[in-house]
Amino acid sequence: MNLWNPLQDAPGRWKVGDPLENVGTPALLIDLQAFDHNLRQMADLARRHGIALRPHAKAHKSTAISRQQIEQGAVGICCQKLSEAYPFAAAGVRSIHISNEFVGKDKLAMAMDLAGRVELSVCVDHMAQINALGLATQRSGVALTVFPEVDIGQGRCGVSDADALMTLVDGIARHSLLQFGGLQAFHGGLQHIPGWAERRQATLHATERVAQCVRFLESRGVPCAVVTGGGTGTAEFDVASGVYTEIQPGSYIFLDGHYGANEWHHGGQTSRHSLFIVTTIMSTAKPGRAVCDLGLKGVAVDSGLPGPWTHDAGSALRYVAANDEHGVLELPPDLDRDLLGERLLLVPGHCDPTVNLYQQYTGFRDGKVACLWNIESRGLSQ
Amino acid sequence: MNLWNPLQDAPGRWKVGDPLENVGTPALLIDLQAFDHNLRQMADLARRHGIALRPHAKAHKSTAISRQQIEQGAVGICCQKLSEAYPFAAAGVRSIHISNEFVGKDKLAMAMDLAGRVELSVCVDHMAQINALGLATQRSGVALTVFPEVDIGQGRCGVSDADALMTLVDGIARHSLLQFGGLQAFHGGLQHIPGWAERRQATLHATERVAQCVRFLESRGVPCAVVTGGGTGTAEFDVASGVYTEIQPGSYIFLDGHYGANEWHHGGQTSRHSLFIVTTIMSTAKPGRAVCDLGLKGVAVDSGLPGPWTHDAGSALRYVAANDEHGVLELPPDLDRDLLGERLLLVPGHCDPTVNLYQQYTGFRDGKVACLWNIESRGLSQ
Repeated sequence: MNLWNPLQDAPGRWKVGDPLENVGTPALLIDLQAFDHNLRQMADLARRHGIALRPHAKAHKSTAISRQQIEQGAVGICCQKLSEAYPFAAAGVRSIHISNEFVGKDKLAMAMDLAGRVELSVCVDHMAQINALGLATQRSGVALTVFPEVDIGQGRCGVSDADALMTLVDGIARHSLLQFGGLQAFHGGLQHIPGWAERRQATLHATERVAQCVRFLESRGVPCAVVTGGGTGTAEFDVASGVYTEIQPGSYIFLDGHYGANEWHHGGQTSRHSLFIVTTIMSTAKPGRAVCDLGLKGVAVDSGLPGPWTHDAGSALRYVAANDEHGVLELPPDLDRDLLGERLLLVPGHCDPTVNLYQQYTGFRDGKVACLWNIESRGLSQ
Repeated sequence: MNLWNPLQDAPGRWKVGDPLENVGTPALLIDLQAFDHNLRQMADLARRHGIALRPHAKAHKSTAISRQQIEQGAVGICCQKLSEAYPFAAAGVRSIHISNEFVGKDKLAMAMDLAGRVELSVCVDHMAQINALGLATQRSGVALTVFPEVDIGQGRCGVSDADALMTLVDGIARHSLLQFGGLQAFHGGLQHIPGWAERRQATLHATERVAQCVRFLESRGVPCAVVTGGGTGTAEFDVASGVYTEIQPGSYIFLDGHYGANEWHHGGQTSRHSLFIVTTIMSTAKPGRAVCDLGLKGVAVDSGLPGPWTHDAGSALRYVAANDEHGVLELPPDLDRDLLGERLLLVPGHCDPTVNLYQQYTGFRDGKVACLWNIESRGLSQ
């Protein structure tokens, strides 16, 4: 029993070919039909516009998924953290962009180690990061591609003005093993502007800031080979911007509840919900309520509580409160049966931190378990 | 690289004996001096009152911690989920109480499997659960101890009236391999009533409901050998209640930010903050702000954002927003230096779902890494 592995050894564990009802709850499910649609659609969008697709692996953290993205034409992946990148490097992903700044000896050691194994690029917004990377490359003898991050309105990381950007670019040039790769520009807030027209307008405005940075650097004789950024909510604008050469959408494969609340242009890019959590109602002791086995340890609630998807009582059940391991459901007043033991599919509000809670996806097709994909980078936040 | 293990193989990985500064961020830390104090104090409290201590392992999910709790006199542990119990059973914990209802074939299979390995008890609040357990015990030939859960005001799981309770007790008696163990009674809402006097008053009121159930069953000739429940916020009242024979505190070993906001009686039970997250400031590109490497994937925010603990800029830094992998800090206006690369200890708002995000604790004493404890039950929510 010492080597007990919950993914293999638990009694009652489901396997490929089983009916979906055999999947123990709570479990993270992928509707493969919707997933395949999403995967193809974004690949097509990028291809049609001649833009490189570098999906963000922070959304799925699974090498089984990055493999499919690359098979469909992705040039590589983004990771948000260095440790997160390791399972992908191990699985053969050859090009990894760390779309984030980092500081610290352990981080530099990981960066140099990874740069020796894959085509690695990283982001900076401070001279101290550049100097630390320069020293590390000198010591290890390994070259590294560096992207200054420009802030286009998010107000989080990245430099905001041309002078600060030029300082970084000049700083990179002073280190012989650092190579200027281009610009990183991402604005998370744009992704979730609900109205399509408002989102488009705000994105055009933010993209103009990227364009200004590109033109400024060109005027100084520094061409940007790559301008990378954007997300699921802005991808349709990013590919047509004439500025981005590469897009970084992550959530498009799943379309979580938060993205589902966006208005999408008719005929435009519309992902389908493909990520679900299946939960079982395990207590019906209170009138008007039911309690299911999905709580804070099985779903992230930072962007809203999970929403019911399908249920034979209709969409009338509402998930109203998450405790550690309990979810409280409000029942419609006219419900005339005991729901104990019934199963419910829920759409998580925010896919990234929800996926991070699970060890495995269970993919289904036609009501049957079709695949089990490990989430190898789960919890790797360093 | 295929067997890359982030706990061992990452470059720059810290080890026992290293200075605390070597710990890569974000990481989950335990201040062992405070932890030991908390461990002892609760054990002493229970012992002084002649009450059994059965700490809740859902708070820590680590066999290294349950071992210490049992060494200090705990009679066993609680788990909230069956899969969560497996690593503890594998590590030699002999008595496990599942303080929760469950439904489903996979759950019954796990319950019967566990009951064959350890002294297992489970909770029920519905006849269908009892009948399913009765059938499972009959098929497997393994006996099981069953606790009806009574609702004492939480309004979640558990039966609320004497008749419903009696129905469950009678139902248990109809299955030869099910044994009535006593009552489960927990009210989560009481734990976080901030005022000590108000919390005490509300706890006395809730405990009276437990007492009524016990007296009622006694009047029907059914003695309750064990009355189990309570938590960190009410333990001092539970041990003195004359009703509970066993308490189930979990968070007392850590005292998270939410519990830290409680008023504790002077001279009474006061845990100390022992659980921290260490994070690094990795971007200072915006005036008045800094960005650290701790976001939603490294700290649960359901009970408030993490609070700064110690920092040489004083407690003036405020963690104001959590994104997936970024934490935004607001800086005091008079700060006169660049914080890039500085490290910050934060107290998580809610320990249980925060611990569930990590694979390992790093315990420290006198500024050095003193232990690395795996969080084996992390993510085991089934």
